Amino acid sequence: MKCLLSKNHSLREKLEKNSIVKVGGAYDAMSAKLVETSGFDAVWAGSFAISATHALPDASILTMTEFFDVASNMSSTCEIPIIADCDTGYGGPNNVNHMVKKYENAGVSSICIEDKTFPKQNSLLENGKNDLLSEKEFVAKILSAKEARIDKDFLIIARVEALISGAGMNEALKRATAYENAGADAILIHSKQKTPDEIFEFTELWKGSVPIVVVPTTYDNVKISELASHKIKMVIYANQTLRAAHNSITLLLKEMVNSERISDIDNKISTMKDIFDLQEMYNMKNKEKELENELKKLGYIN
Amino acid sequence: MKCLLSKNHSLREKLEKNSIVKVGGAYDAMSAKLVETSGFDAVWAGSFAISATHALPDASILTMTEFFDVASNMSSTCEIPIIADCDTGYGGPNNVNHMVKKYENAGVSSICIEDKTFPKQNSLLENGKNDLLSEKEFVAKILSAKEARIDKDFLIIARVEALISGAGMNEALKRATAYENAGADAILIHSKQKTPDEIFEFTELWKGSVPIVVVPTTYDNVKISELASHKIKMVIYANQTLRAAHNSITLLLKEMVNSERISDIDNKISTMKDIFDLQEMYNMKNKEKELENELKKLGYIN
Amino acid sequence: MKCLLSKNHSLREKLEKNSIVKVGGAYDAMSAKLVETSGFDAVWAGSFAISATHALPDASILTMTEFFDVASNMSSTCEIPIIADCDTGYGGPNNVNHMVKKYENAGVSSICIEDKTFPKQNSLLENGKNDLLSEKEFVAKILSAKEARIDKDFLIIARVEALISGAGMNEALKRATAYENAGADAILIHSKQKTPDEIFEFTELWKGSVPIVVVPTTYDNVKISELASHKIKMVIYANQTLRAAHNSITLLLKEMVNSERISDIDNKISTMKDIFDLQEMYNMKNKEKELENELKKLGYIN
Amino acid sequence: MKCLLSKNHSLREKLEKNSIVKVGGAYDAMSAKLVETSGFDAVWAGSFAISATHALPDASILTMTEFFDVASNMSSTCEIPIIADCDTGYGGPNNVNHMVKKYENAGVSSICIEDKTFPKQNSLLENGKNDLLSEKEFVAKILSAKEARIDKDFLIIARVEALISGAGMNEALKRATAYENAGADAILIHSKQKTPDEIFEFTELWKGSVPIVVVPTTYDNVKISELASHKIKMVIYANQTLRAAHNSITLLLKEMVNSERISDIDNKISTMKDIFDLQEMYNMKNKEKELENELKKLGYIN
Repeated sequence: MKCLLSKNHSLREKLEKNSIVKVGGAYDAMSAKLVETSGFDAVWAGSFAISATHALPDASILTMTEFFDVASNMSSTCEIPIIADCDTGYGGPNNVNHMVKKYENAGVSSICIEDKTFPKQNSLLENGKNDLLSEKEFVAKILSAKEARIDKDFLIIARVEALISGAGMNEALKRATAYENAGADAILIHSKQKTPDEIFEFTELWKGSVPIVVVPTTYDNVKISELASHKIKMVIYANQTLRAAHNSITLLLKEMVNSERISDIDNKISTMKDIFDLQEMYNMKNKEKELENELKKLGYIN
Repeated sequence: MKCLLSKNHSLREKLEKNSIVKVGGAYDAMSAKLVETSGFDAVWAGSFAISATHALPDASILTMTEFFDVASNMSSTCEIPIIADCDTGYGGPNNVNHMVKKYENAGVSSICIEDKTFPKQNSLLENGKNDLLSEKEFVAKILSAKEARIDKDFLIIARVEALISGAGMNEALKRATAYENAGADAILIHSKQKTPDEIFEFTELWKGSVPIVVVPTTYDNVKISELASHKIKMVIYANQTLRAAHNSITLLLKEMVNSERISDIDNKISTMKDIFDLQEMYNMKNKEKELENELKKLGYIN
Repeated sequence: MKCLLSKNHSLREKLEKNSIVKVGGAYDAMSAKLVETSGFDAVWAGSFAISATHALPDASILTMTEFFDVASNMSSTCEIPIIADCDTGYGGPNNVNHMVKKYENAGVSSICIEDKTFPKQNSLLENGKNDLLSEKEFVAKILSAKEARIDKDFLIIARVEALISGAGMNEALKRATAYENAGADAILIHSKQKTPDEIFEFTELWKGSVPIVVVPTTYDNVKISELASHKIKMVIYANQTLRAAHNSITLLLKEMVNSERISDIDNKISTMKDIFDLQEMYNMKNKEKELENELKKLGYIN
Repeated sequence: MKCLLSKNHSLREKLEKNSIVKVGGAYDAMSAKLVETSGFDAVWAGSFAISATHALPDASILTMTEFFDVASNMSSTCEIPIIADCDTGYGGPNNVNHMVKKYENAGVSSICIEDKTFPKQNSLLENGKNDLLSEKEFVAKILSAKEARIDKDFLIIARVEALISGAGMNEALKRATAYENAGADAILIHSKQKTPDEIFEFTELWKGSVPIVVVPTTYDNVKISELASHKIKMVIYANQTLRAAHNSITLLLKEMVNSERISDIDNKISTMKDIFDLQEMYNMKNKEKELENELKKLGYIN
C-alpha cells in the first residue's frame, strides 16, 4: 500500500545488483525531480547545497527542521529514493533516534551521518574545523539510529572523516570496521585530495563487507569505471547541480541587468512550458477534466 | 536602529527618483542574493518560481506559510528591498490583514496582490482559470492591507488581471483607478500578449498618478527604454533566474549521468569557493578570529 | 511494517464494532497524548482549538501548513488514530487533493472537510459568516479527496453545515445523500442548537448508510446513550480540553501574580514527574542505559 | 514606528525601576496572552514546557526552528516583552550569532542561554546529564550574542548551572563574574534545592552589578518579598501554566470519557465566548464592519 517500503527496498537492491549506484545531488524538490528524470538511481539531499540556497554557511547553522523539510518535499515529488545528508546527526544519540523516526516516516529512504563534532564545518573549507568525534560516541549514534528505524531497508550510511581530519588511513580503516560492526549499512569514505589515491588505498586495505560510498568533489577527474573497479558501490555527485544553478544565474543576471531587451537571453532559459510540465500543471488540468467527467456522471454538469 | 524602515523607504525613493526601477525575480535566498550582487534595485519573490522549486503547480497549492518562509529568508540575506508576490492574498480581507502584519514584521518591504479568485492559476497557463474577483471584494483587500501596515513606506501593489482574463481595457482602467482610490501604492498591469501594445495602450489611457509596474514575461522583446518612455516606473523580470537554473541543471545532469568523469563539466559550474563566498563562510571564519582576539583580551587564550 | 495502515484500519473497525466511537479534541501533541491515555478511541485535531493556541481567530487565518504540523506531531506521538479537522479543505479540489496526500503520508488516519465557503468563520460565532458552498463544488472536493488517498481506510468525513447556515433540514438531507454518493466515508451533521432535536430529526429522516458523526458543543446535556440510540456512530468532544486549559491557566495566573509564594498553587498543577513521564524522559534515560549495555558488549565501556 | 524597540526598552526599564520583575512562563501564544492579561511584566518562552506540548523530552530534541516559531508567535500576540529560553544556544558561537539575529528580528526582547554542553537535559531531572561547558566556550557564546544584536536593549541573560551540576558555589561565583565581564546583561542563577539557601548565599557573595534572575521551581515556598530583599531583580515562574493545563486536562478527560453528558464538566471549562475573545474574533467582526463603512464611503455598498 504505502510506497515507502518498495522505495527503500529498491535502494538496497540497486546496491546489490548495479555495478555502481549513481546518486545526483539536489537542494530542492525541483532539482531532485530533474535528478530523477535524467536517469540517476537516487537523490542526495546535500547539506552544503541546501545551506547555500539559504545563503548560510555549511556549518550546522540551519537546523534539522529546515533540512528535513527539503528532504521531505523531495520525497513527495520523486519516485526514486532520497538519501538525506544529516551531517553529524544534529546532536547525540537521542537526537539521532528522533531524527531517524522523522525521516523514515516522511518517506526518505536513507540517512548519512558523519563522525565529526557538532557543530560541523564543511569538509572542503580551507582551515575548516574538522575535529573527529570519538569512535565510541559515533558508534552510539549508529546504534541509536538502528534502534529507531522500522524498516531494515532504511539504510544508515556512516561517513568516515578520518582522512579529511588528518587522522590518517589506519584510523579511517579502524573506524570503518567499527561502524560496520555497529550496524552501518554502508560506509562513506570522504577525501579532499585532488586524486583518488587515498580512496583507492582505503578500498584496497579495508576488509569490510558493506558497500563503500564516495563523493568525488575534489578528485573529479576520476573515471566512474575506476571507481567501480575499486569496489566502490555508490558515487554521489553532491553539489554540481547547485553550482550549475549558481553559475547560470550569475551570468544571466549580469547580462539581464544591462540588456536592452530580455529576449536576448531566451536561449539560456527553459520555456514556461518546461516549468509548467515540471510542476505538473498539465496533469492538474487533466485531473480537472476527469473531475468534470465524474461530476457529469453524477448529474452536476450537463 | 532596525534597518527595515530605511529598506522600505529606499524602495519608495527609487520609485520616485529612478527613470525605471529594475526588479529581479528570485525563488530562494541564494538567487535573491545574486539578484542583489548583480545590481538590481529589488528582489521579486515570485510565487510561480517558488512553486516550481517545490515541483508543485502555481495554483495556490503552497500555503502562505511556505511562500512567507522564502521571502523571510530573502529578507534576512539581502540589503535591497524584497517585494513579495502574494497571489490573491490567500483568502479574504482578514487573511490579507494577517498577511501584511507577518510580512512587514519579517522585514519584507512590499507585497503585491492580484484581483483573481482564490485558488488562482498561473496567468500564462493556456486554458488556465482566470476568473476576476469583484472590484468591491478586491478593494476590500486593499483597504485591509492598508489598515494592517505600520510603515507607510511598506508598499501595497495591486495587480490588475483584467487584460489576462479577457475583461478588456475599460475594465482594466476602471479597476486600476478604483485600486488607486482605495490606497494602492502602485498598479501592476499584467498582460500575456507577445507584444507590449495593450500595456502601452493602458499606460496612455490611464489617468492615475501612482507608479505603473509591468512583468514582460511574454512580450520580452520590448526595450527597457520603451517601457520607461511609456510612463512605466518598475519592471519585474519575474522568473528568468528559475528558468536559467532549470535549464542549466537539466543540461548538466544529462551530461553527468553519462560522462566518464565529472571534471568534464567543470566549466559549467561555479567553484566551491564561489559558493563558500555566497554563504559567507569566510566571513564566519573571520568572525571566529575576532572572537579569538576577544578571548585573548579576556585572558582565555594565551 | 509501517503502522499507519493498521492505525487507519482500526478507526474503520471501531466504527463498525463499537456502539459509539468516542473522539477527544486536542490542540497539540500533549493534549492528544492525554486524550489517548484517558481511553478515548481517537483524537480530533480541531481547528478552533489550534487557532486558539495561536491566539488567532478560527477564520481560516492559520494556513494548512500550520494545522498540518500540529496533526503531524500528534500522529508521531499517539497510537490511536488522528482525525484532522481540515475546515473547508483550504481551497478547491486541487488543494484538497494535495492536502489528502500530505496528511495520509504523515500518518493521520482521517480528514474532515465542511461545505462552507473559504475563508470560513467558526460555526458557533454569533453573526458569523456561514455561506454554503454549492453542492456541486463540495462534491468535487470529496471526489478529489478520494482520488488522492492511497489507503481506502483513510477516512474522508464530509461535514454538512446546512443546519448551521439556516438552509434547513431538507437541504441537509439532500447534501448528506449527495456526499455519500460522492464517496464520503462518514457524514458529520453539525448544529448550534441548545438541544439535539434537529440532529435527531436528521438521523431519523436520513436514509444513508455511512456512519453519522456529531459534535455536541452546544447541546452538551445530551446523553451519550441517546446519541447511540439515534444511529449516531461517532461523537467528537471537540474543544473541551482547550477550554479546560484556558480556564485553569487563567485562574492560576490570577492567583500566582498576587501570591506571596507559589507553593500555594501546588495542588492545582501536575508535578514535574508527571510531565517528565509524558515527555518520555524516563524512557529516554532507559534507552541511554540500553545503549550503554550495547557499548559495553562492543568493548567501548568496561 | 516599529514597536520592537520600545518593547525591548520596557524590559530594561522594568529591571531598573521595579522592586522585582515578575515573569510568567508560557508555551504557546494563548498561554502567553494569558500571562499578559493577568498582569505579569514579561513572558518566559520555556523550553521544558514547549517540549512538553510536543510530548518530547526536554533534551535538545526540538530544534531551534521549533522553539523559535513558538516565541515568534508569542511576540506577534503580546504587548509585553518575550524572553526566550534558548537552552545552550543550539550549538557554538556561530549558532548563537545566527540565533540572536533571528530572535531579535522577530520581535523577541531577550534570550537566555545556559552553560551546559549540547545536547542538554532538563536541570531538574534525577540523574540527568548536567555537564558544564568550559567557561571559555560559554564566554565565546556571550561575546557572539552581543556581536549579533542590533539593539542594546535586547537583553542577553547568562544562566549559570554550576550549582545544578555540583561544581559548587565558588565556580558559580567565578562564572557569573566572567559572564558579566563578557557582556551578559543579567545572570540567571539556577538551583534544584528545596530551599532558597544556596541562592541567597550566592546573592550575598556575588559582587557583580548586573541584575540577578531566579527560577524557583523547586524552592517554591520562598516568599517573593524574600527574593526582592536578597537583591534578586527578576523571578520566572517557568512552567506552572503548562502543569496547570496538564492537570486540568487530565482530570477533565478522565471525567469526560465516562460521563453520560458533558454538560457535567461545564464549570471546569471556559466558555466559547471566552475563547472567541482571546482569539479576537469580535475584534475581527468589528474590523469587518469598519471595512463595510469604508466600502460604503467608496460607493460599493448602498
